[in-house]
Amino acid sequence: MSSITSSPNSLFLKNPILKTNNNFTQSPTFKLASPTKARPVSITCSSSVSQTQTHPSTQIHAQQPDRVFNFAAGPATLPEKVLLKAQSELYNWRGCGMSVTEMSHRGKEFKSIIEKAESDLRTLLNIPGEYSVLFLQGGATTQFAAVPLNLCTPDDSVDYLVTGSWGDKAVKEAQKYCKTNVIWSGKAEKYTKIPAFEGLEQNPDAKYLHICANETIHGVEFKDYPTAKNKTGILVADMSSNFCSKPVDVSKFGVIYAGAQKNVGPSGVTIVIVRKDLIGNAQTTTPIMLDYKIHSENNSLYNTPPCYCIYMCGLVFEYLLELGGLKEVEKMNENKAKLLYDAIDGSNGFYRCPVEKSVRSLMNVPFTLEKSELEGEFVKEAAKENMVQLKGHRSVGGMRASIYNAMPLAGVEKLVLFMKDFQAKHA
Amino acid sequence: MSSITSSPNSLFLKNPILKTNNNFTQSPTFKLASPTKARPVSITCSSSVSQTQTHPSTQIHAQQPDRVFNFAAGPATLPEKVLLKAQSELYNWRGCGMSVTEMSHRGKEFKSIIEKAESDLRTLLNIPGEYSVLFLQGGATTQFAAVPLNLCTPDDSVDYLVTGSWGDKAVKEAQKYCKTNVIWSGKAEKYTKIPAFEGLEQNPDAKYLHICANETIHGVEFKDYPTAKNKTGILVADMSSNFCSKPVDVSKFGVIYAGAQKNVGPSGVTIVIVRKDLIGNAQTTTPIMLDYKIHSENNSLYNTPPCYCIYMCGLVFEYLLELGGLKEVEKMNENKAKLLYDAIDGSNGFYRCPVEKSVRSLMNVPFTLEKSELEGEFVKEAAKENMVQLKGHRSVGGMRASIYNAMPLAGVEKLVLFMKDFQAKHA
Repeated sequence: MSSITSSPNSLFLKNPILKTNNNFTQSPTFKLASPTKARPVSITCSSSVSQTQTHPSTQIHAQQPDRVFNFAAGPATLPEKVLLKAQSELYNWRGCGMSVTEMSHRGKEFKSIIEKAESDLRTLLNIPGEYSVLFLQGGATTQFAAVPLNLCTPDDSVDYLVTGSWGDKAVKEAQKYCKTNVIWSGKAEKYTKIPAFEGLEQNPDAKYLHICANETIHGVEFKDYPTAKNKTGILVADMSSNFCSKPVDVSKFGVIYAGAQKNVGPSGVTIVIVRKDLIGNAQTTTPIMLDYKIHSENNSLYNTPPCYCIYMCGLVFEYLLELGGLKEVEKMNENKAKLLYDAIDGSNGFYRCPVEKSVRSLMNVPFTLEKSELEGEFVKEAAKENMVQLKGHRSVGGMRASIYNAMPLAGVEKLVLFMKDFQAKHA
Repeated sequence: MSSITSSPNSLFLKNPILKTNNNFTQSPTFKLASPTKARPVSITCSSSVSQTQTHPSTQIHAQQPDRVFNFAAGPATLPEKVLLKAQSELYNWRGCGMSVTEMSHRGKEFKSIIEKAESDLRTLLNIPGEYSVLFLQGGATTQFAAVPLNLCTPDDSVDYLVTGSWGDKAVKEAQKYCKTNVIWSGKAEKYTKIPAFEGLEQNPDAKYLHICANETIHGVEFKDYPTAKNKTGILVADMSSNFCSKPVDVSKFGVIYAGAQKNVGPSGVTIVIVRKDLIGNAQTTTPIMLDYKIHSENNSLYNTPPCYCIYMCGLVFEYLLELGGLKEVEKMNENKAKLLYDAIDGSNGFYRCPVEKSVRSLMNVPFTLEKSELEGEFVKEAAKENMVQLKGHRSVGGMRASIYNAMPLAGVEKLVLFMKDFQAKHA
C-alpha cells in the first residue's frame, strides 16, 4: 500500500506514484494554488480503492485500477502522470486564476507554455537551430497539401515512396499542386514491406522525396531512411505515428510533420519541423494558414493556436525528458514490441502478423487469427478484461494493438497473457 | 455559507453552486465512476477558503475566490461550472476508463460526445435540417480561404462589407480565389460604424455577400443583417466573436463560421454551419481539409478532429441550454453591456468609446481615457484587483473589455466600480 501526495508544481518523476508497482490504493492531494491577491484555497482529494490489484509488471507505468488498457491507434493512451497533472491544473493553472483553456494566446502565461513546449521538444529530438518548430492545426492530412504548396511550383516533380494508406493519401493530395511520381508502392503486397533503398529509381529533378515513417494502419516502419537523390536532397517524412518514439537525426530531413495524437498529446495539434531555408516560397494560391512562412515568422501565434493541446504536448515532452529522453523511450518501446511480436510468432500460426519482420512497427502491431471467425470474440473478450480498441482498421480487418510510448509494459504483458489463454481455449 | 456536492453526471443547473451568490466556502465532491469490471474508486475533494468574500451581485455567475476576472478577447473566460465538470472528468470520462484526450474518434464514447454537441448546438440555434454542422480546425482564418474555395470559381465575383480588421483580412485572403469587391469599408472612420443597408451597392452577379457579424478588435456588431441582393442570395457571416451570444435566424445565411474560443470553448475548433445545397462544388485545388463536402459526408470525422475541444464545446452548449437558451443569454449580455457602456458614457468624457452607439458590440467594449497617459496605470491597477487582459488590441491601443457569455455580471460590476474609483483619483 502506498500513500501519495502530488502538487501541480512537482516534477513527474519526483512524484512517488511513478514508483508504485503492485498496489494501487492511493490518496493524491491536489493543491490548487491561489492567484496573486485572491483568497487561498486548497482542495484535498482522496481516493479509496475497494480491492488491491496485483500486476505482473514492476515497470513504472502500470494500470491504475480505474483505467483500461487502451490500444487505440490515435487518439491514444497518454501517460497517467500527464493526465493527473493536467487534471490538477485544469481549473487554475499554477495559481494564475485561469484555466489554460481560457488564456489569451498572447498573454505571458501561455507564451511561457508554448516556449517551454518548443524548447523541450528541441531538446528531446536535438533539433538543429536552422529548423523552425511549428505548432499548427489540421492534422497530417493538411500537411499532405501544405508540403507541396510550400516546397514546389505546379510544374515541379516530386517523388513519393508509398508503404501504406497514409503515404497513398499524401501523394493523392499532392497531385493537386505538382507533378507526382510514385517511385515504389507496396500496395500489390498489401503494404507489408519496405524496399531496399539502393534499388529505388529516384527522379533527379524531383523537388523532394516523401515517405511515411510509420504506417499506422499497416504496421510498417522505416528502420533507416533513404537518401533523397534529387536536385535538392530534400527528404520529407510524415512521422505522425512514431514521432518521439525514438531518436531521429532531424538534419537528414527537409520537413518532418506529425499529428500529436499518437505519442505526444491529444488530437488537434500538428507539429511541423522545417528547415528554415525551405520557408518562404509558397505557391500564390496557398491558404495563409498553410503557409509555413507566416507561422514561422509569428512563432506559431499568427492566429489563435490550439492552446490546450499544445499545453498537453508540453506536459508529455517534459515527461519524456524525465524518463531519460528518447533513447530510453526507444528501449521501452523495443521491449514492449518484442514481447508482442514474439507471442505472435510463437503461437504456431494461431496468430499471424503479415508484416515482413525487418520493418515491423514498434508502434502499431497488426495481427490476424488463423481462425478468422474468432476475431470478433477475441476483441469482445479482451474488452471484458479492460483491453480496448483492439479491432483492426476497417480497411484491413483483423486486430491491431497500438502500443505507443504511453502504453505501459503491463498492458502488453496482460495482452500477451490473454492471447495465450485465448489460444489455449480455442486451439 | 453553502455546502456543495457535485457529481460528473449531474446537470449544471442541478448543482447548487449555481445558486451561490455571496459566500464561497465550498466542499465539492467529485465522484469518478469506475470503468466496467475495474475496481470501484471514489475521489473526494474538499476545498476550504480562508476568508469569505462579498460580491455586489446575486447573479448565478460570480467570481470564485481563486479566479481572476479575465477580459481577454479570446481565448476567453469559460463558465466555472464547465471547467469544474471538465476537471472532474479529465482523468476518466464517466467511468469509461479513459480521458477524452485519449479516446479514439471512432469509438462509441467520442461519437456520443460529438453527436450530443451537434444536437445541442442545433437546439440552441434552432438550426434547420438543410444545414450541415461541421467541427473543423484552423480558426476563422482558414475559413477566409475555405469560403471562396467552396462557393465560387476563380472567375466569380463576391461582395465584402468590411467593418473591421477581421472583415479586411477575410477579403484579402479571398482575393486569391475569386474576384472580390469591397462594397463598403469603415476603415476611413477607424471602423466605428456600420452603414445603412439600403444604400449599399451590391454586385448583382456576386456569388455571396460576406460580413463579420462582430468585429472583436473594434467592437462593432451587426444588430440586424443585410439581405444579399445578388444572384444567389447567399449571405456569409464570420460570427467568431458573437457566436451563441444571442439567437440568430440561421436560415438567413448560406454559411456561418466561428472560432470557438470566444463564447463556446477553448481554441482549436472552428464551427461551420453551411446550407447543404452549397456543398460539393469546391475548386479543384482546394486542400481536402478545406472542402466542406468531405467533412459533411463524414460527420466531421474524415480525419482526427480536435476531440477535446469539441468535448468542451459540448459542455458549454449543455450549460447554455440549461441557462434557458440564447434568449436568456442575450438578456444577460445586454444587461452587462449596458452597465459598462453607461459607465463610459456617464463619465463626462473621462472614458470614451469610439463606436457609434447603435452598433456597439455586446461582446467587446473598446474604450480610451481622455488622459491617455493614464492607460498603462489603468491596466496595471485593474490587474492588481484581479481584472486582467484589459489592454486594447495592439493595432488600436486604449483598453478593451471583452465580456462574453461566461463573464459574470459581477466581473462587469467590479470593473465599473474600479473605473469610478480610478476616475475619482485622477479626474
